[in-house]
Amino acid sequence: MEITVVKIGGNVIDRPEDLTVFLKKFAALPGNKILVHGGGKMASKFSAKLDIPTKMIDGRRVTDSQTIGIVTMVYAGLINKTITAQLQSYGCNAAGLSGADAGMIKAVKRSPYPVDFGFVGDIPTDGVNAGLLMKFIDMELVPVFCSITADGQGVLLNCNADTVARSIAGALSFSDAAVRLIYCFEKQGLLSDPNDDNSVIPLINSDNCEKLKNEGIITSGMIPKIDNAFEALNEGVKEVVIKSYFNLDKTDSGTIVVNR
Amino acid sequence: MEITVVKIGGNVIDRPEDLTVFLKKFAALPGNKILVHGGGKMASKFSAKLDIPTKMIDGRRVTDSQTIGIVTMVYAGLINKTITAQLQSYGCNAAGLSGADAGMIKAVKRSPYPVDFGFVGDIPTDGVNAGLLMKFIDMELVPVFCSITADGQGVLLNCNADTVARSIAGALSFSDAAVRLIYCFEKQGLLSDPNDDNSVIPLINSDNCEKLKNEGIITSGMIPKIDNAFEALNEGVKEVVIKSYFNLDKTDSGTIVVNR
Repeated sequence: MEITVVKIGGNVIDRPEDLTVFLKKFAALPGNKILVHGGGKMASKFSAKLDIPTKMIDGRRVTDSQTIGIVTMVYAGLINKTITAQLQSYGCNAAGLSGADAGMIKAVKRSPYPVDFGFVGDIPTDGVNAGLLMKFIDMELVPVFCSITADGQGVLLNCNADTVARSIAGALSFSDAAVRLIYCFEKQGLLSDPNDDNSVIPLINSDNCEKLKNEGIITSGMIPKIDNAFEALNEGVKEVVIKSYFNLDKTDSGTIVVNR
Repeated sequence: MEITVVKIGGNVIDRPEDLTVFLKKFAALPGNKILVHGGGKMASKFSAKLDIPTKMIDGRRVTDSQTIGIVTMVYAGLINKTITAQLQSYGCNAAGLSGADAGMIKAVKRSPYPVDFGFVGDIPTDGVNAGLLMKFIDMELVPVFCSITADGQGVLLNCNADTVARSIAGALSFSDAAVRLIYCFEKQGLLSDPNDDNSVIPLINSDNCEKLKNEGIITSGMIPKIDNAFEALNEGVKEVVIKSYFNLDKTDSGTIVVNR
């Protein structure tokens, strides 16, 4: 079975017109597919409206008891159902899910040491119920995942959406699916010059990756994404692509990450 | 196939300890089952925090563009995922759903005449995808529905949770399931004296219903629930019970509504 896992970040979600362009392209993507979405920007806006301060450490949201309520509302509620309803209108049989639903993704609350991120979860290797997810795909459903998960003990946890996408792609690969993982974001791909959209690095492998990191071309903001990409490849994912969400339908665009 | 559809209202959801008592009983309920939940109280609180006025006409929420966002967040996000994660922890394989997911419930936006309720939906007879819902139940999943639906054109709609429960029960009955519908609320059942919890009317049928309405024993607040119950029976539902959520496990409690 071939499956494409696509992840979109919070910036596109915050721009309804761009989101519509992307979702139409996603709906038209042939074959089995899964969408994973973030939503951090909207959660921050919403927290501000409620006078709940947003606290980030190393780009990760500190999720206290109030904030887990907010992100559950925004990610699993508003964003997930808006995307799902819109995809349905484009003929794509989307089914919005959190990791809590049907125990699809069981996460583990992160240790409060050295940094207490609160209700933040990490996904263990066996965290994704790939068998059940495959059944959903067999039923020709298109799962749309937000990054809210649960620990199996009734506690909701906020996970990183890039990691959710990678964990899903990895677990499906382990179940013998041929999985392609696409990280969609604002830029055309990984750029050698951040100010030049035409400077896309077409291919990153373990050889040139270190060099690009040392030269400062892979900057701190991109490192988690690249590391996730290599982890996905190590977990058996066939191909990882980092590209613009406007180019989802263009096969020859973006940066391909390979393991050799 | 036998299926029990249970509906709980917003009051119990607003009391975490009571909700836990109920959810443990629901998790222990034998056989195939579906939960439908409201959440109006929490939505109103949340709207107040955001300085969005709550407007009700005849007990129904007027759902403007801001309010559909709020109820989607609160019902499909916070409440649905909190309940789902909690049920999972009690060994019940709950899967939280809105009507938008997998096109499970397609609703029609209510006409703005004579009263414009905004983004409020009504569910047509063929609105529920009973075939797909049966597949979920065959997979031993326990669907947990909030009352958010979509119109198939990308527009999210707020439906009445009692009606969602009745529509699901009716559609499954039409697909040859033997369905029992249980409306759980604060009281022991329909009371002949609202101040006396021991005055439960054990049985309502079409004969005594009119009499009870005329005598003012079935009061305005209860009329939509009773009407829904009779509609469910007309749609083939085997039994409708109105009872306390604390008595979900007690078979001889509450008011049974029958069609004869």
